[in-house]
Amino acid sequence: MMTITDRNQAEAADETDPLRKARRHFKIPAGVIYLDGNSLGPPPRSALDRLQTAADNEWRNGLIRSWNDACWIDLPAVCGKRIAALIGVEPDDVLVADSVSTNIFKLAGALWRQKGGAIAVSDDEFPTDGYILQGLSGLTGAKLISFNEQDDPFQDQTVKILVKSAAHYKTAAIADIEQWERRACAADAAIIWDLSHATGVLDLRLKNAGAAFAVGCGYKYLNGGPGAPAFVYAAKDQANALEQPLSGWMGHAAPFDFAQPYRPADGVRRFACGTPPILSLSALAGALEIFDQLDLAALEAKARALGDLFLARTERMGLTSVSPGAGQPRGGHVSVKFENGYAVVQALIAHGVIGDFRAPDLMRFGFSPLFLRYADVWDAADILENVLTSEEWRKPEFRKKQTVT
Amino acid sequence: MMTITDRNQAEAADETDPLRKARRHFKIPAGVIYLDGNSLGPPPRSALDRLQTAADNEWRNGLIRSWNDACWIDLPAVCGKRIAALIGVEPDDVLVADSVSTNIFKLAGALWRQKGGAIAVSDDEFPTDGYILQGLSGLTGAKLISFNEQDDPFQDQTVKILVKSAAHYKTAAIADIEQWERRACAADAAIIWDLSHATGVLDLRLKNAGAAFAVGCGYKYLNGGPGAPAFVYAAKDQANALEQPLSGWMGHAAPFDFAQPYRPADGVRRFACGTPPILSLSALAGALEIFDQLDLAALEAKARALGDLFLARTERMGLTSVSPGAGQPRGGHVSVKFENGYAVVQALIAHGVIGDFRAPDLMRFGFSPLFLRYADVWDAADILENVLTSEEWRKPEFRKKQTVT
Repeated sequence: MMTITDRNQAEAADETDPLRKARRHFKIPAGVIYLDGNSLGPPPRSALDRLQTAADNEWRNGLIRSWNDACWIDLPAVCGKRIAALIGVEPDDVLVADSVSTNIFKLAGALWRQKGGAIAVSDDEFPTDGYILQGLSGLTGAKLISFNEQDDPFQDQTVKILVKSAAHYKTAAIADIEQWERRACAADAAIIWDLSHATGVLDLRLKNAGAAFAVGCGYKYLNGGPGAPAFVYAAKDQANALEQPLSGWMGHAAPFDFAQPYRPADGVRRFACGTPPILSLSALAGALEIFDQLDLAALEAKARALGDLFLARTERMGLTSVSPGAGQPRGGHVSVKFENGYAVVQALIAHGVIGDFRAPDLMRFGFSPLFLRYADVWDAADILENVLTSEEWRKPEFRKKQTVT
Repeated sequence: MMTITDRNQAEAADETDPLRKARRHFKIPAGVIYLDGNSLGPPPRSALDRLQTAADNEWRNGLIRSWNDACWIDLPAVCGKRIAALIGVEPDDVLVADSVSTNIFKLAGALWRQKGGAIAVSDDEFPTDGYILQGLSGLTGAKLISFNEQDDPFQDQTVKILVKSAAHYKTAAIADIEQWERRACAADAAIIWDLSHATGVLDLRLKNAGAAFAVGCGYKYLNGGPGAPAFVYAAKDQANALEQPLSGWMGHAAPFDFAQPYRPADGVRRFACGTPPILSLSALAGALEIFDQLDLAALEAKARALGDLFLARTERMGLTSVSPGAGQPRGGHVSVKFENGYAVVQALIAHGVIGDFRAPDLMRFGFSPLFLRYADVWDAADILENVLTSEEWRKPEFRKKQTVT
């Protein structure tokens, strides 16, 4: 792609964008440039439609019969199959269930029961990954090791389980999954990949890279709705040897036989626990439809190109990026430093440019390639430049903290 | 209430029913008598409206801003407050989160970490309660004791934690919570009450009865939608001493500070784990609105009176009930035995009377007092009588098993 240096060139890039038609799936509010699809994806029409069908037809008219008639019971596996295609694994090795935190607990608990040893997590991971492992460690006595992001956790030979993000939540730096798996293999260790900031924006090939375990988020680039159920991946040659600790009835081989004791379902299905939230799950099922036939390599390339464009602009504004630079592998977002970044992000939101802030000083902007145009990114950069040069962010209303940022 | 012996008397009972106006909240499909609100409640209009607002206004237009602007972040506690009123505990001691199975794991895991000892569950409990404890036991080595429903688990002095239903899922027999709590107290044990079949249909007074811990279901009598998030109750004088093992970021004292290590929120809020499914949670929030101003004693009395009426009819059909008889304390459903009960339930469904079947031979009928009329129950009994006397259930199409019953 040619370097974009003015708005006309941005528009020209939109005209030849192989993903330009994907935007029709969304109805972004007028006046909004949404650079936070990495935190909460906007609703595809198919998600809203599927949700309405679930509520009005299936729940209201079908009532309890919809567990069979509308195939509610199959939704976790049906959604899992679509996600499997996005992360490059066998169709029946992914299940949608619970939250990312809960799924990390399930996988780490099951692997620790099998392998013992220490569990490692970088001190720079998304916080909940560490929090949930602290809970597991407190309950079981499993040794938990926090390491510096730059270090090699397998230098400590007691480490048998590693939880690691494929794309970092702040920097969007990408891990070389294949290389990490080789190191894990040499250490007789297992890696649980957190794909939250990677799925739906990177051309993931987990199976080819030798990865056997992962979790990920349904509400970021998958656009499944606020707090959409998460997913869990466990390769079938390994899943059947695992005893999943959150062994609720939905992970039973025959949940409606009401028979004791617990007998796990085959493969990743044993990672189900309680009754899934069907309304939220239906929205996710609808949202996943738009990924059919999409070229994942084009998705990743466009996200990176949009990020490159934004970084080129912010560099000229004198902002320092903590994300990999132009031409380097990177996830779908970029983060740039600014001491008063919180206030700047609030000022941008007032102008319709929605990004987010990560303490202490990072402004984070996500470039979801399905609905964003090069011209949008150009315009967003213009608005950011205006907010900075005018120092509009100094207004008191932009400096007042809210609960969630 | 006078004994009802013909349809005119049933209609007369409906006219004087203090809950008769509650039916207007629902739009039950024409031709359906829904006797399965104990398994999946039908949607109140307020639930569908709230869901649509959450999808169209909050998600589509508000996007990420709705975590603050639409108060998504407060929904688990807001719903918890409404449920607290239904179970008779302090408003801020209940939180909506995850599933019943997951919440049992959290409470049992936290209590076991604190108290040690054995965990007991009756072999006749709803299966997932036992399944999830088997998972906890496998992970931690906690001793798990399965006991006969008729026996006293505290005879075994090692038992320090008991999981017990307030209303039994098959029989609807009600536990005397206050008496059980006295026995638990004498044994220095804690009881985790499973309120799944009790909340929203019984006049529960957990705090007065001395109960400190409970879980329950959002999708049965609370009508929160298929797989609606569940709730967890932990009395505040005890909650702060508990280390909740599923310590995801939503249970952190300051989840958006992104600070290590995990520092639990006060009270029951530490029982949150991952990001909650906001769409499903919004439907539940809407559904809970209809309980405002409702007289819980009237709710319980009507459910029992509807059950009494149905039991009087089935007794005359020669069917044996496994539920407490007329005049006895009972939850909102009744179960009657019939060898070919599965086929009978299918034939009833074909006639619009929706109940369910529990293997090996129980036909289960729920009497949700908010939308059912005495005349509905009379008519359903007529239809059951016809199916039995005509032996219509012998038709092959009614004997073919489906996945979920």
